[in-house]
Amino acid sequence: MRGLAGLAGCDMKTRIITGLWAGAIFVTLIALGGSPFVILMGVLALIGLSEFTLMRNHKLMAFPFLVTSLLVAFPFILMLLERRLVLEELPMSTTQWMVLGLMLLLFWTVVTKNRFTYEDASFYFVSAVYLVIGFSSFALVRLSEDGLVKVLLVLFMIWATDSGAYFTGKAIGKTKLWPSISPNKTIEGAIGGIVSAIVLGIVYVLIEPVLPILEVLVLAVVVSVVGQLGDLVQSAYKRQYNVKDSGHLLPGHGGILDRFDSMIAVFTVIWVFNLL
Amino acid sequence: MRGLAGLAGCDMKTRIITGLWAGAIFVTLIALGGSPFVILMGVLALIGLSEFTLMRNHKLMAFPFLVTSLLVAFPFILMLLERRLVLEELPMSTTQWMVLGLMLLLFWTVVTKNRFTYEDASFYFVSAVYLVIGFSSFALVRLSEDGLVKVLLVLFMIWATDSGAYFTGKAIGKTKLWPSISPNKTIEGAIGGIVSAIVLGIVYVLIEPVLPILEVLVLAVVVSVVGQLGDLVQSAYKRQYNVKDSGHLLPGHGGILDRFDSMIAVFTVIWVFNLL
Repeated sequence: MRGLAGLAGCDMKTRIITGLWAGAIFVTLIALGGSPFVILMGVLALIGLSEFTLMRNHKLMAFPFLVTSLLVAFPFILMLLERRLVLEELPMSTTQWMVLGLMLLLFWTVVTKNRFTYEDASFYFVSAVYLVIGFSSFALVRLSEDGLVKVLLVLFMIWATDSGAYFTGKAIGKTKLWPSISPNKTIEGAIGGIVSAIVLGIVYVLIEPVLPILEVLVLAVVVSVVGQLGDLVQSAYKRQYNVKDSGHLLPGHGGILDRFDSMIAVFTVIWVFNLL
Repeated sequence: MRGLAGLAGCDMKTRIITGLWAGAIFVTLIALGGSPFVILMGVLALIGLSEFTLMRNHKLMAFPFLVTSLLVAFPFILMLLERRLVLEELPMSTTQWMVLGLMLLLFWTVVTKNRFTYEDASFYFVSAVYLVIGFSSFALVRLSEDGLVKVLLVLFMIWATDSGAYFTGKAIGKTKLWPSISPNKTIEGAIGGIVSAIVLGIVYVLIEPVLPILEVLVLAVVVSVVGQLGDLVQSAYKRQYNVKDSGHLLPGHGGILDRFDSMIAVFTVIWVFNLL
């Protein structure tokens, strides 16, 4: 028991130190914005892809991962270049580039005589789309007008949701939300998360009036619900592959996919519905 | 033996009658162009999706197929509407719509507690992308300037490739191309197909000078190589699922995916590289 407690203490220390370091770098690059932030988003997307690949027990030094890496990197490179180049000078759009990547992955099923299957190709392509759309929407909001204020609003809403859900769940949580996917989540907690996001949103725009109050309410509900769903999708995925964490880049916090699951889902939905 | 011969005769008759009917409808709608052709492409994409779904032994009357059908139908509906509406009036772009579909499919993994897996979601999404890009690029070429002449050039090149490959293979085919994927194809046949497409292309632009001769040469090689690869990808896929035909809509010809595999791949590559 003593050993376990000691271990838990050590884990907590690692978790806090990693959290402080990673948090400081993250916050600095958010504040900087511009190209450094776009580069950060691209790097995180590539690390996420490596986590997906390793969870599937595939190798990183192989054709599918390398092709998909190029597929993931291109949209971020394009975002960096677009500030200097006219769009027409570029050879192809992001969508065209991604479809080219899909064709190469499908062709790889022929070359490997189905050792690499249509399902594998689909897996890589969908993981790429998930990461590219998530992290590039994040970058797009940051690059937009009032980008810093908007990004911070969304991040605070996500964190308010997590904390609100955690503490409400602890205090009054009784009814399980989805026991087979995420055993500790309760309906009371989920509602507490949504309420916290709404309260945070209202307080935030009273201080920094970046959006009308009605839009903040809509945003808070969307961010809170989608953030919790994004978390559940990653949990479902990890449960299928029987892993606890998507990776070990952030000791005590798991991998990039674990840490950014809510943000990926939230910024994707913000982009899909043109919310910010 | 007599029975087999009789059956073969009957099959051949069915094949020819179906071929004539389907061919007549296809050629008429190509000639008409405009909305009727866009609708045909959308319908073919939806039938292709049903074939993918059934090959995977999934049901058509279920959430994943229904969501993916909407995902597939939307780009074609958008193409029909764009001729009347201003683009800005539309709620979201094709890419945004498709990403929304992907999110719903991923969310379905949570609802079904992984009975519907991340791989299933990827499978549906990639099949949708494959069909939407293939058939809508086909429609885009037809709707472009000199669309009819260009579409016929590409189709003739594909058919020249098929016939050229078949007869060259029969006559001098010795070296197997990819025995484990498509046992009857030979390298000699593949080269014969490319040469036929080049000859057809040169003759075509001498009669109808729609492209400079150098561009026709590039187009012929791309169409011929990609057409044969598209065919191999479908073969690999069917071999994985252990089916001979993707469907039975066209008796004697298999399904839509069998009949359009080359065209889907070819028009996708034409779109990716802005070739026409």
